Amino acid sequence: MKKILMSVPNISEGVRKDVVEQVADAVRQIQGVKLIDYSSDADHNRSVFTYLGEPEAVLEAGKALALKTFELIDMNVHKGGHPRIGALDVVPFVPIHGVDVSEAIEISRRFGKFLGDYNVPVYYYEQSATRPERESLPNIRKGEYEGLPGKLSDPAWLPDEGPAVFNPRTGATVTGARYPLIAFNVNLNTTNIEIANKIAKAVRYINGGYRYVRAMGVALDDKGMVQVSMNMINYTKTPLPRVLETIRSEAARYGVSVAGTEIVGTIPLGALEEIVRHYMQAHEFELGQIIENSLLE
Amino acid sequence: MKKILMSVPNISEGVRKDVVEQVADAVRQIQGVKLIDYSSDADHNRSVFTYLGEPEAVLEAGKALALKTFELIDMNVHKGGHPRIGALDVVPFVPIHGVDVSEAIEISRRFGKFLGDYNVPVYYYEQSATRPERESLPNIRKGEYEGLPGKLSDPAWLPDEGPAVFNPRTGATVTGARYPLIAFNVNLNTTNIEIANKIAKAVRYINGGYRYVRAMGVALDDKGMVQVSMNMINYTKTPLPRVLETIRSEAARYGVSVAGTEIVGTIPLGALEEIVRHYMQAHEFELGQIIENSLLE
Repeated sequence: MKKILMSVPNISEGVRKDVVEQVADAVRQIQGVKLIDYSSDADHNRSVFTYLGEPEAVLEAGKALALKTFELIDMNVHKGGHPRIGALDVVPFVPIHGVDVSEAIEISRRFGKFLGDYNVPVYYYEQSATRPERESLPNIRKGEYEGLPGKLSDPAWLPDEGPAVFNPRTGATVTGARYPLIAFNVNLNTTNIEIANKIAKAVRYINGGYRYVRAMGVALDDKGMVQVSMNMINYTKTPLPRVLETIRSEAARYGVSVAGTEIVGTIPLGALEEIVRHYMQAHEFELGQIIENSLLE
Repeated sequence: MKKILMSVPNISEGVRKDVVEQVADAVRQIQGVKLIDYSSDADHNRSVFTYLGEPEAVLEAGKALALKTFELIDMNVHKGGHPRIGALDVVPFVPIHGVDVSEAIEISRRFGKFLGDYNVPVYYYEQSATRPERESLPNIRKGEYEGLPGKLSDPAWLPDEGPAVFNPRTGATVTGARYPLIAFNVNLNTTNIEIANKIAKAVRYINGGYRYVRAMGVALDDKGMVQVSMNMINYTKTPLPRVLETIRSEAARYGVSVAGTEIVGTIPLGALEEIVRHYMQAHEFELGQIIENSLLE
């Protein structure tokens, strides 16, 4: 089976279209990488690129994107509404297909060393974090670019790669491996937001629920329903069917049923494997049985 | 989304490996077609090839395979344990991904005309059949190659393409569009074969069940279970979850539960779409949301 790694770099430029296009071109020029999406937000002054490929090709694309970003973006003059710590703000590596998270971590470390050699301070986050307080991106990014000189002089925030020296042009970069995030919403046949909030608390990690679930209750006034809105941050360890069944069970306590669910945006094929195994009781089902899979090899 | 058509030709040669290899090479030489499997049965003296690609490329591969087959196989000297009516015995075209059955039918008709121009009598079957009694492959193949001269002189069995003249070297060819077949078995927590037989009758077409289900009860002595063994012959119209739920309900009548299921061999991604929609209640879920799908485009 072909290995597929995804990367979703965020850069601090969302206004100058020619800059965004040149960065996109840098990715397109790497053989074996497919740029599947990129978009810019002018208010945030930020762009996000999504591309897929074999791990080594994705690493090369990251390097090409980084060099082009540092060439064209100067953080000295950057303003924007979204938190950011550098020109190449964050570069996640996401295992999609036939890739272990350990391999994604290794790729992120090689990428981090490359940036460090380029005199960019680097912090590893999520699965690549070197200490617990660096797992969270918001935690690392606290103080942002403007606070970076102070951060780098704090022994607790020595960078994982590169010099502990403020690079005013590039700022710092956060990189690491993370699991694919699945946005999964469950709509309930009630207008009672309290029920959605209670169920969100039942399933989410911070209140004692599943380890890899973030959840909140949301009123859907136009539908006359409420929703448990979730981010599933590791479908391999907290699979969707298990969480959905818990929600069905909790909802039934209140005489409420599930009207429908929404998988928002993209989902890796691997998440479907567990859905088939669970609900079809197809204990031995494997993605390799899917006919189209042979075209990914 | 890329269009993917599959073809699974059966040829009347399963002994001479060099012939089988030359036929496989004829397919491999067509750009845009991927030969994903081929295998031979010496007792049946028969080989089956499976390949995928865009519809036009699959049509070209079929023509190349046909010409090589007619060059190397002489039905005058063919003996084998499997029913057959010609050197290129049957050529199904199977819509897998982004292809309507109407497009597969059109491809099969263009393939049939190509063979007819080559003086091979052609019968269209399954979705491409020109009359009801030609839908079934066993029906068309009755009498086999040896009975073909008589068949061709019967006005009811005028070929759909090509001359109504016996071609002793090639025999006839059956071609047409058919849906992907999914082999789906449901294991029951009982040793009572009667229960498996009753449930098989409940779900299968011939006894009043679902239109696109073939089913039989099977004893799994080594497991101490029985099985409802099924062929799902049109998952788009009779989806797997609906049949599984009926089996669960029927089994419960006897106090029996489903121990597990088996999806045997390959399954098109499209069949998973309905599994996700049904069990997750994800009414709007589409295959286009699968990240890997973008690599098929």
